[in-house]
Amino acid sequence: MQVTDTDWSKTEKKIAQAAFEQAYQREIAALIQQVREGAGAIASLEDLWQLHDFLSARRHEIDGKYDYRYSVLIFVFSRLIREGWLHLDELAGLAPDKLTKITVLANMG
Amino acid sequence: MQVTDTDWSKTEKKIAQAAFEQAYQREIAALIQQVREGAGAIASLEDLWQLHDFLSARRHEIDGKYDYRYSVLIFVFSRLIREGWLHLDELAGLAPDKLTKITVLANMG
Repeated sequence: MQVTDTDWSKTEKKIAQAAFEQAYQREIAALIQQVREGAGAIASLEDLWQLHDFLSARRHEIDGKYDYRYSVLIFVFSRLIREGWLHLDELAGLAPDKLTKITVLANMG
Repeated sequence: MQVTDTDWSKTEKKIAQAAFEQAYQREIAALIQQVREGAGAIASLEDLWQLHDFLSARRHEIDGKYDYRYSVLIFVFSRLIREGWLHLDELAGLAPDKLTKITVLANMG
């Protein structure tokens, strides 16, 4: 299921970029909110190091997840939908075969 | 300037333990306060990863610094005094030679 740069039309790239950015902003906003709330409840050193561990894990995850290469974008979108950061209808306008692949993969997780 | 376990009297050990604990609690409380305040001001992903970097550095530093071995305690106390987490008068009751060493080292930093 190799999908390369040339398989995406100009319009599809525009839709993909907007959806990618939208999901990213949503996840970041939720993470910031979570850390702000969590930090307010820190009462011990253990809590503090738990926050540190949490940030380490999330940083690693987010760095890996938001990979905007057309060769992996189908997988990235399916994951973002599965995790709730993106809605399928925000990808409306992509070719039907892409939407089918994304939907199938999203339901596999 | 090797100082071993046997160089510390029972009374000195009690004073040392209390002072060590006191400094530790002070530094932890200050750190927690700092993180709680800093976290409330997080507005971007960059801020979040800055907090993560900060916690990584502090965790490493604190893990290394609070080393309660009698062979290194003179150095630990001198550092804690230099950094403001401990006051020399909280070590009152230690042998004069220890207090002198701690004072000299504290002023060297």
